[in-house]
Amino acid sequence: MPKKIIAVDMDQVLADMEVPFVELFKREYEVEFDDAEAYLVDHPEVDLNMTIRELYPYINTYEFVRNLPVIKNAQMVLKELQEDYIVYIATAAMDIPKTFSAKYEWLEEHFPFIHPQQFVFCGNKEIIQADYLIDDSIRQLKRFNGTGLLFSSSLNQKNTEFIRVNNWEDVREYFQSQKQ
Amino acid sequence: MPKKIIAVDMDQVLADMEVPFVELFKREYEVEFDDAEAYLVDHPEVDLNMTIRELYPYINTYEFVRNLPVIKNAQMVLKELQEDYIVYIATAAMDIPKTFSAKYEWLEEHFPFIHPQQFVFCGNKEIIQADYLIDDSIRQLKRFNGTGLLFSSSLNQKNTEFIRVNNWEDVREYFQSQKQ
Repeated sequence: MPKKIIAVDMDQVLADMEVPFVELFKREYEVEFDDAEAYLVDHPEVDLNMTIRELYPYINTYEFVRNLPVIKNAQMVLKELQEDYIVYIATAAMDIPKTFSAKYEWLEEHFPFIHPQQFVFCGNKEIIQADYLIDDSIRQLKRFNGTGLLFSSSLNQKNTEFIRVNNWEDVREYFQSQKQ
Repeated sequence: MPKKIIAVDMDQVLADMEVPFVELFKREYEVEFDDAEAYLVDHPEVDLNMTIRELYPYINTYEFVRNLPVIKNAQMVLKELQEDYIVYIATAAMDIPKTFSAKYEWLEEHFPFIHPQQFVFCGNKEIIQADYLIDDSIRQLKRFNGTGLLFSSSLNQKNTEFIRVNNWEDVREYFQSQKQ
């Protein structure tokens, strides 16, 4: 039987955007706090979506994307999954065209065991032909034809439509359960 | 019924690589001719695949890709096809990562009626979920799951496995015949 294909989103699934975003937020708005969630509760006037739009010129840069930290266990679990599956990285890069090179170099550095022929920079993921898609975006999972796994992030907490994975250990467990 | 999806390759289908490649060849090897095919017949010692590899450092540049001419009628026919189909551009960009920006800007300039969310920069096109793929690469068409249309180029003349389209008027005719 041919190997099944797993497509994996990059931002917030492989690359941690949240920690660097909080640092950027503190620096640009000149505020100081330790707990971002507590800060947002104490400051209901902060509109997170508006803030992301305002800080977008700093996010859509080579430096920001090239230096994102890797999400815990992503490398180890993807390396394991490659034994039984074909792994593609499918990242919505068309929103942030200035970061193409940063994304490519980042993937080459942190995921050298995935061939660049298996990188996909796209927009709408309805075009992705795979058996599974691991993504934090509900919108993208809805467009996708195969089985969607919702990777938890602070913006998708309430959704119950998709199989939820909270971290890469959950991903590993999900695919182990598929073997039986 | 939802619209069907047509994925379209870029190099040698939308963008003419051959004319600029011949110019590059003449300049770098300091030769002069009018008819490239006749030149190759007269010079059997020229190995085209080897030459492409040798000239690759000039091809994998922003300048070369950004200035490629558009293949005749591609714009007109794709604009028409968009009325009945969803059109994606799927280009194998992972071989030439230095040209991401050039490809994006070129598509935005020459195909402004196709939304960047419908651009896909990929490697292996087995990952493309579409009903049709128009491509000059036999290798990519073989990997693709839907109906492949082979766009003629000097490197694929002998293949008979796929529906052949010699130019964009043939593409238009093919899709008109699908309507009936």
